[in-house]
Amino acid sequence: MKLDRPGPILCFGEVMLRLSTAPGVRLANAQSLAVHAGGSEANAGALLAQLGRQVEMITVLPASPLGDQCEASLRSVGLDTRHVRRSDGRMGLYFVEGTAGAGRIVYDRAVSAFAENADASDWPALARDASWFHMSGINLALGGKPAEAALDAARAMVDAGVPISFDVNHRASLWEDRSEADVRRVNDLLGLTDVLFTNPRHIAGLADEDAIAGAFAAFPKIAVIAWTERSVEHGRLSANVTTRDESFETDAASLANVIDRIGSGDAFAGAVIDAILRGAAAEECVKVGLAAAVMKHGIAGDRWIGTREDLEAFDPFAPEDVRR
Amino acid sequence: MKLDRPGPILCFGEVMLRLSTAPGVRLANAQSLAVHAGGSEANAGALLAQLGRQVEMITVLPASPLGDQCEASLRSVGLDTRHVRRSDGRMGLYFVEGTAGAGRIVYDRAVSAFAENADASDWPALARDASWFHMSGINLALGGKPAEAALDAARAMVDAGVPISFDVNHRASLWEDRSEADVRRVNDLLGLTDVLFTNPRHIAGLADEDAIAGAFAAFPKIAVIAWTERSVEHGRLSANVTTRDESFETDAASLANVIDRIGSGDAFAGAVIDAILRGAAAEECVKVGLAAAVMKHGIAGDRWIGTREDLEAFDPFAPEDVRR
Amino acid sequence: MKLDRPGPILCFGEVMLRLSTAPGVRLANAQSLAVHAGGSEANAGALLAQLGRQVEMITVLPASPLGDQCEASLRSVGLDTRHVRRSDGRMGLYFVEGTAGAGRIVYDRAVSAFAENADASDWPALARDASWFHMSGINLALGGKPAEAALDAARAMVDAGVPISFDVNHRASLWEDRSEADVRRVNDLLGLTDVLFTNPRHIAGLADEDAIAGAFAAFPKIAVIAWTERSVEHGRLSANVTTRDESFETDAASLANVIDRIGSGDAFAGAVIDAILRGAAAEECVKVGLAAAVMKHGIAGDRWIGTREDLEAFDPFAPEDVRR
Amino acid sequence: MKLDRPGPILCFGEVMLRLSTAPGVRLANAQSLAVHAGGSEANAGALLAQLGRQVEMITVLPASPLGDQCEASLRSVGLDTRHVRRSDGRMGLYFVEGTAGAGRIVYDRAVSAFAENADASDWPALARDASWFHMSGINLALGGKPAEAALDAARAMVDAGVPISFDVNHRASLWEDRSEADVRRVNDLLGLTDVLFTNPRHIAGLADEDAIAGAFAAFPKIAVIAWTERSVEHGRLSANVTTRDESFETDAASLANVIDRIGSGDAFAGAVIDAILRGAAAEECVKVGLAAAVMKHGIAGDRWIGTREDLEAFDPFAPEDVRR
Amino acid sequence: MKLDRPGPILCFGEVMLRLSTAPGVRLANAQSLAVHAGGSEANAGALLAQLGRQVEMITVLPASPLGDQCEASLRSVGLDTRHVRRSDGRMGLYFVEGTAGAGRIVYDRAVSAFAENADASDWPALARDASWFHMSGINLALGGKPAEAALDAARAMVDAGVPISFDVNHRASLWEDRSEADVRRVNDLLGLTDVLFTNPRHIAGLADEDAIAGAFAAFPKIAVIAWTERSVEHGRLSANVTTRDESFETDAASLANVIDRIGSGDAFAGAVIDAILRGAAAEECVKVGLAAAVMKHGIAGDRWIGTREDLEAFDPFAPEDVRR
Amino acid sequence: MKLDRPGPILCFGEVMLRLSTAPGVRLANAQSLAVHAGGSEANAGALLAQLGRQVEMITVLPASPLGDQCEASLRSVGLDTRHVRRSDGRMGLYFVEGTAGAGRIVYDRAVSAFAENADASDWPALARDASWFHMSGINLALGGKPAEAALDAARAMVDAGVPISFDVNHRASLWEDRSEADVRRVNDLLGLTDVLFTNPRHIAGLADEDAIAGAFAAFPKIAVIAWTERSVEHGRLSANVTTRDESFETDAASLANVIDRIGSGDAFAGAVIDAILRGAAAEECVKVGLAAAVMKHGIAGDRWIGTREDLEAFDPFAPEDVRR
Repeated sequence: MKLDRPGPILCFGEVMLRLSTAPGVRLANAQSLAVHAGGSEANAGALLAQLGRQVEMITVLPASPLGDQCEASLRSVGLDTRHVRRSDGRMGLYFVEGTAGAGRIVYDRAVSAFAENADASDWPALARDASWFHMSGINLALGGKPAEAALDAARAMVDAGVPISFDVNHRASLWEDRSEADVRRVNDLLGLTDVLFTNPRHIAGLADEDAIAGAFAAFPKIAVIAWTERSVEHGRLSANVTTRDESFETDAASLANVIDRIGSGDAFAGAVIDAILRGAAAEECVKVGLAAAVMKHGIAGDRWIGTREDLEAFDPFAPEDVRR
Repeated sequence: MKLDRPGPILCFGEVMLRLSTAPGVRLANAQSLAVHAGGSEANAGALLAQLGRQVEMITVLPASPLGDQCEASLRSVGLDTRHVRRSDGRMGLYFVEGTAGAGRIVYDRAVSAFAENADASDWPALARDASWFHMSGINLALGGKPAEAALDAARAMVDAGVPISFDVNHRASLWEDRSEADVRRVNDLLGLTDVLFTNPRHIAGLADEDAIAGAFAAFPKIAVIAWTERSVEHGRLSANVTTRDESFETDAASLANVIDRIGSGDAFAGAVIDAILRGAAAEECVKVGLAAAVMKHGIAGDRWIGTREDLEAFDPFAPEDVRR
Repeated sequence: MKLDRPGPILCFGEVMLRLSTAPGVRLANAQSLAVHAGGSEANAGALLAQLGRQVEMITVLPASPLGDQCEASLRSVGLDTRHVRRSDGRMGLYFVEGTAGAGRIVYDRAVSAFAENADASDWPALARDASWFHMSGINLALGGKPAEAALDAARAMVDAGVPISFDVNHRASLWEDRSEADVRRVNDLLGLTDVLFTNPRHIAGLADEDAIAGAFAAFPKIAVIAWTERSVEHGRLSANVTTRDESFETDAASLANVIDRIGSGDAFAGAVIDAILRGAAAEECVKVGLAAAVMKHGIAGDRWIGTREDLEAFDPFAPEDVRR
Repeated sequence: MKLDRPGPILCFGEVMLRLSTAPGVRLANAQSLAVHAGGSEANAGALLAQLGRQVEMITVLPASPLGDQCEASLRSVGLDTRHVRRSDGRMGLYFVEGTAGAGRIVYDRAVSAFAENADASDWPALARDASWFHMSGINLALGGKPAEAALDAARAMVDAGVPISFDVNHRASLWEDRSEADVRRVNDLLGLTDVLFTNPRHIAGLADEDAIAGAFAAFPKIAVIAWTERSVEHGRLSANVTTRDESFETDAASLANVIDRIGSGDAFAGAVIDAILRGAAAEECVKVGLAAAVMKHGIAGDRWIGTREDLEAFDPFAPEDVRR
Repeated sequence: MKLDRPGPILCFGEVMLRLSTAPGVRLANAQSLAVHAGGSEANAGALLAQLGRQVEMITVLPASPLGDQCEASLRSVGLDTRHVRRSDGRMGLYFVEGTAGAGRIVYDRAVSAFAENADASDWPALARDASWFHMSGINLALGGKPAEAALDAARAMVDAGVPISFDVNHRASLWEDRSEADVRRVNDLLGLTDVLFTNPRHIAGLADEDAIAGAFAAFPKIAVIAWTERSVEHGRLSANVTTRDESFETDAASLANVIDRIGSGDAFAGAVIDAILRGAAAEECVKVGLAAAVMKHGIAGDRWIGTREDLEAFDPFAPEDVRR
Repeated sequence: MKLDRPGPILCFGEVMLRLSTAPGVRLANAQSLAVHAGGSEANAGALLAQLGRQVEMITVLPASPLGDQCEASLRSVGLDTRHVRRSDGRMGLYFVEGTAGAGRIVYDRAVSAFAENADASDWPALARDASWFHMSGINLALGGKPAEAALDAARAMVDAGVPISFDVNHRASLWEDRSEADVRRVNDLLGLTDVLFTNPRHIAGLADEDAIAGAFAAFPKIAVIAWTERSVEHGRLSANVTTRDESFETDAASLANVIDRIGSGDAFAGAVIDAILRGAAAEECVKVGLAAAVMKHGIAGDRWIGTREDLEAFDPFAPEDVRR
């Protein structure tokens, strides 16, 4: 994994408009919806851009005011949108219900501009100047052009020597009607991955025990495996970063007064990538990753919002009183 | 036109979720969106139900929380939803931009539950118990199953002797890519119509002069033609109701402090249908229709909200001061 | 208790407009108030209607826009309002203060349309077609016409063989200045009740020990007693359903991130009635009742909002993470 | 009329809580209501207090959080509340519908704390230290204790030599079921009045012509008659101040972008009283009165909000562009 | 400490406008800000005024609409503003970020009207009629005129025999660039203080052990030392009141569903002062102080909002369920 | 004026945070404030960037969350912020009162990061790659470092051959206490200007007649003079663009339903600059400039929000009905 390449981090995936109800209001009786932009890769990229890194979002948005809204939102956190293409097709949407204890996301992403046009990038050209490539398994779960493009992209990155981070981001509902060929692509991609975000136990085809060892064995290119673990009944979050040499697991930090759980895994991924890029050891990677993930729980919308100074000042085990 | 049939008024058409920005906010920079349900036929039906009539909405909504939202909204104004089917497919959406002077509606109705499943009603059974049938030209513009269902419905109504009102509701953007067969269906439907809502000058194929006479001649079943006329530069609205015997045109009422223009034509249609059903003469029809249309301009959302008493108390030429 | 009667469930009681402050805002410094409709019987009925049952609300609302608001709100959740009478008199109001730890409800229900006109229903006629009758003790606490009507109604139901559920819903503040005759009516009603919602310890005149046995002994018609129990200091809720044959008490479920406690007892009652009506055993009744009550804590306003599928998917002991 | 008395201005009347919908939203479908305090005399007093005068509000509020809200609101604009009594009884409420062109106020003031307890002030003691007394005809229209107290107060003021301003504030709906004795009280009060706010044409019993002369003849104590005149169809407002010596009528100022019409007459009264108290001639009185009334149309809520400097800088005939 | 002096309580300090984001929104992406007034001494005074005491705020506000906003806000809770001077200079502002777990206050108080003009009060004249004087260490931390005025005021109070309460209110960020002379003033003021609000361990120069004894020894005038103690990891708050004779420490009350932590220490101080003024023993002082502090956590904005009855009814160890 | 230079447009000036009340709410009683970023040059630049041009904002923001908010806002409309420096100092603020007919802006820009650090740019380096330079007279009015930097910048641009547009943007309140030297700088800058935005009548020292000719004579470098003219009493706006060869004045367009007047002059400037850059004749420049200015009146916040397609579709003399 070559960490000293110059050039931007590339994030590839769908960016959607998120429409959320207020806390305690269900979609069935909502009178207004808050507007955010979101998407796993864009969320991770947003954190990286706010930490000061050059990040280019590779995606397709519709040529419509909703596409304008999304692009403005990407730019506002510092994501470079020069490679955001605009095309025909719908804006992918998802509706988020803020009801405590029964939260729900309703996706409405059929025939989106991204799904219909995800294949038009010149990956070898993009790879030439990139320092890192980040993507999630959602691209694969979407099937069709996004899934093809995901593999094309990853292969071009490998050819150019660009390290790849891959967040499996497994969501059962997305994989329900997928073909075997679709599922096989996950394995193909794992073979190209340098940094894997997932609990190895969740990768299909891996034995429950010795999952980490199994993953390292099955996919020789993987250098780092990292994930967060939620213990719902205790409202706690811990994290683990494991390399072929060392492994660190944090204590479980308490999650009180959660504002928004969505995107905490993406914040984790972004912060771990940043730490890897500055050559941090596993212990430092996992610590800053957990901080980003816990801090995200207190921030509305999909994205972590803050500065590098904010992130460094945040201790997930001692959520501060009012800072003056 | 048989006005003394018992049974409910039937309204057939798509009901969509409307998401609107606050005044002066563009979709490109909106942070929240107000939620309403809307749709030309549902809007007209909502007025009729609020005036105390029994109105059944015939439509298809998705089996999702967004469908629940829409159905609850239909019921809240008294529309009977027993014939609202729920199916797979998307919720049709439209985004409304409240910017003064540059208002815009962005439709997002592809592959909606209605578009994919509009053909499943048993029209002869519905016609048997109905007192009136109302529909707009949007069903025809959508093509496919909605257009087919629209003609099937109208034919079943004619067979059963149910009067038909038809609001052409011409929108260029919807008709852009339509086939000739699609366009021909408008004429077919005009031939089945008793009460036509449109300025005859806007019906394709009719000469600009003598448009009313032409319409009556071309479509012998039409008994009433009614429309509103907006003079944008003066912010005024007038209305016309013409039968084969008489014709009344109102003065132009001033539209000050407009809150929401959408749905004013539907309110007009609803109020005129109500007047026809109680046997009112053209002068009374056009007067109450204009009142409903002008009053609607002061009400947020697609629908007129009020009671029969409100409507009767409203004088479009003397918008009252605060009523105590 | 005859469970196979056809016809609608009848709910009888006052429906009021609820005006609530935002969280942390006191009535003394509120700048805006959220509008909901509420009332113990309407809340229980709303859950039953959303589960797909036919439910008719029997109440009196003022002939005013506030009455219109309430009626629209009842209809929106599927309650049938054909027996909602409109009359002179005020809209009953209650103001809810969302301040954490010092929540307060301020009632403003003097000379309401319901209090002044609750006696005008033709109970024998209503009973003839009903499958169930539900009511709370608030009617009795109000005294006067509501209390008289409550007993008239119950007697008519018993005469017609309609099962009666009665939620004592004891509120000290309502009973403060009541006469002995008023209090005696509670006992009269308990004698007519099939399903009793209250912790037997809270029924005046019952010994603290052996309260359940005492209740079954004193009121031979009672078939089921059901209640929830809140342990404030631990933020937990448990439930109990006891018949003459069996008794089930749930574990105490944790209540985190409570949005709105009001109406959780009504949701419990509605869900238990639904379970009884489909012939469920006590264990199933109490389980689904607790689920409804816990789920309600996460929903703003007096009412549970959802579908049967939502309720069945909700496990009060494992509040899910984001559902996608 | 003795203008150099020291001591506070007294304003006597009911203060109510005003709950208003957003623009374009009807009470029947409002989801939230804005909270303001209002009342004709309190509105006039609020302007006088904000201009720097010492003003004491004489009223009765309920001993409840809603009473606290009202008292805080009175104090916030500088009204002295030391003579605001708190008692049992309801908070008087009124609901305001912001729908353009069909605005409506729904009163809910039955059995209010004020209506039930308006008679408990020691008027001679209050009169001793007062410099002015202001009241509206609403007190008389309410009948009962408010009407009696109004006359008691006025007589005590006359005895102590305190000038009286009286704003007839005629509202047909309030006078509908009033007895003849109630109506006669208006004439009694006119006989005690120094400054009368009403268009003389609107005083019952006065001939339509020569109304001003007639008023001066019938009520010899009246020194000043002042009113505003609205020409609805042109959206314009003019004002007139007439003394026994001189009369000035302003041109009609244009009312564009009206935010809230309620309370503009009260702002007019307050500004005219202030001008009279500083010895201004009729021309100055009417000019500043019109300015206050027009400026109020642009301010949400019942009250004029501003400073003496704001009022002096405002030219109703040249509504300024953005002032920087 | 003379507790039976007549006259008002004086509170001296800066009053600022507080602009806060909604929960979960960071200042970097806020779209709207809630407006409150705040300031340590005004917050304590607000509680005392709401309990019915006469409290005069001594401060300087800018002669601007923002100053008007602040003054109206002070008056709304019953603070007497006759000694609030208005001058040139900015309104001091502070921005509050409601993000859970990473809350932050950003101060913007440079060149404020208070900082530039805090020295203009005639302290001997004010002291003559005062019953109590309350102030916080923020005045000293600001340095310059506020610090000088603070000492001048305290000396004038001592000369006139007015008891002084002093809330050290240490904030590291304010003291960062202070001179030694500035720091020395804290000690000067401690020598003039009767009631000290601070944990003695936090007073610079005091040994960590025996801090209370040390404080009493070093500052012979101090009669009472009182403070609250937060245990962040457990979300609990306890309080201590110690006199030269007795000491009471409460159990730690649980803080669930915290709405706003800011101002809880000020509410504690206000409630303790009120208790001391009515001659309460330490146990009663600390009990009511803790109640005020815990109750404040559930109220949005800097200030405790309520009545004496509310405070007496609140048990911090048994936060009530909905009170009806 | 060399129009074919490659490279970005540079905009130099202060960017401030704008905090605005809702319509009809005064700063004295606002409960919340909307947050926008604004500043004359940033507003003009925002339009140019949204039309697709590369625009770099040259300014100084504080190193604080408020600075982060501003920078994110600049980026969201596509402004390049690579030359935005961050420093100590305050965020400049301005408070906007939305009260109709008495709108007011209260500036709070003392000791801002920009005012204290505006002089740190390397203008010759910036000029080397720039295609255009835009600035307003506010920089001069601020005096001190901003005024010096403004002239340094302009001289560097002239040296490098970069065309300069200068919007005088005269505001009396800013110039009140300015020295003669400050005023003289305006003339210096006019001597360096290519495109002047101001009505020549408003330039100090120019005779009222023949103002245009005088301006062209006095400042030989000026190639274009452009301005808008508001006729307040008629609510209309016209525009004029005059070169040394030709002059076009538009008709006056009607301004109905104005949402926000602020920034309309900046939108005009931006659109005229864009037209000049694409070589448009005066008639086209003034037409598109007026369209941008009128369209801006319907958009909340300081900035025009839209796309080139929106601007081209907008006809200020025929504000469209709802566009579908």
